[in-house]
Amino acid sequence: MNMRIPILKLHDTLLISIQWELDDQTALQFQEDLLHKIHETSARGVVIDFTSIDFIDSFIAKVLGDVISMSKLMGAKVVITGIQPAVAITLIELGIRLEEVMTALDLEKGLEKLQRELGD
Amino acid sequence: MNMRIPILKLHDTLLISIQWELDDQTALQFQEDLLHKIHETSARGVVIDFTSIDFIDSFIAKVLGDVISMSKLMGAKVVITGIQPAVAITLIELGIRLEEVMTALDLEKGLEKLQRELGD
Repeated sequence: MNMRIPILKLHDTLLISIQWELDDQTALQFQEDLLHKIHETSARGVVIDFTSIDFIDSFIAKVLGDVISMSKLMGAKVVITGIQPAVAITLIELGIRLEEVMTALDLEKGLEKLQRELGD
Repeated sequence: MNMRIPILKLHDTLLISIQWELDDQTALQFQEDLLHKIHETSARGVVIDFTSIDFIDSFIAKVLGDVISMSKLMGAKVVITGIQPAVAITLIELGIRLEEVMTALDLEKGLEKLQRELGD
């Protein structure tokens, strides 16, 4: 069985918590699942929480950077939360700057930020 | 890598969405993870969403019934959401009546119900 990351829908927002290190296949599956779910639910916002992740490799970083850009292209605002030091370092060193992405400390604060932004 | 089900913490509530059929090992791991998380976060409520699950076998049904009873023992109120017909049939046929568990149609309604119950 393939591992897949559950995507929770709460009102017009999708919530995802990445709690274990991803393998390549799971990361790509997540990319596909998230984009489909945005389309299917007409979600206006996405919060991806990384609190439990203390390391990512360059492939996963690239996939995550891509899925964030793709989600934005599809019209969803993205907040990423709980980025730890090593993950921030990997992202920046790889040139994945995520310049327009919103960030927050944890899932709750991310959701609040997103809801303010969406004008709820 | 073992598949594990992410448990999201939102304020004093834990949110879980079971989106793919569980194997026995994953179900037992989830049981352990959820009880630890309740303890660790002092969560007062748990919402488990089954919307995407259209079938469960008897072992999984038993594990889920147990984890709900255990969560309540630990002081957390549990709401289960999105139970489909075949899952309801399996649970009742196995004598897993979940008599004191709250239910709701979907994750959002489950969360609202729980928050009313917790007096937020």
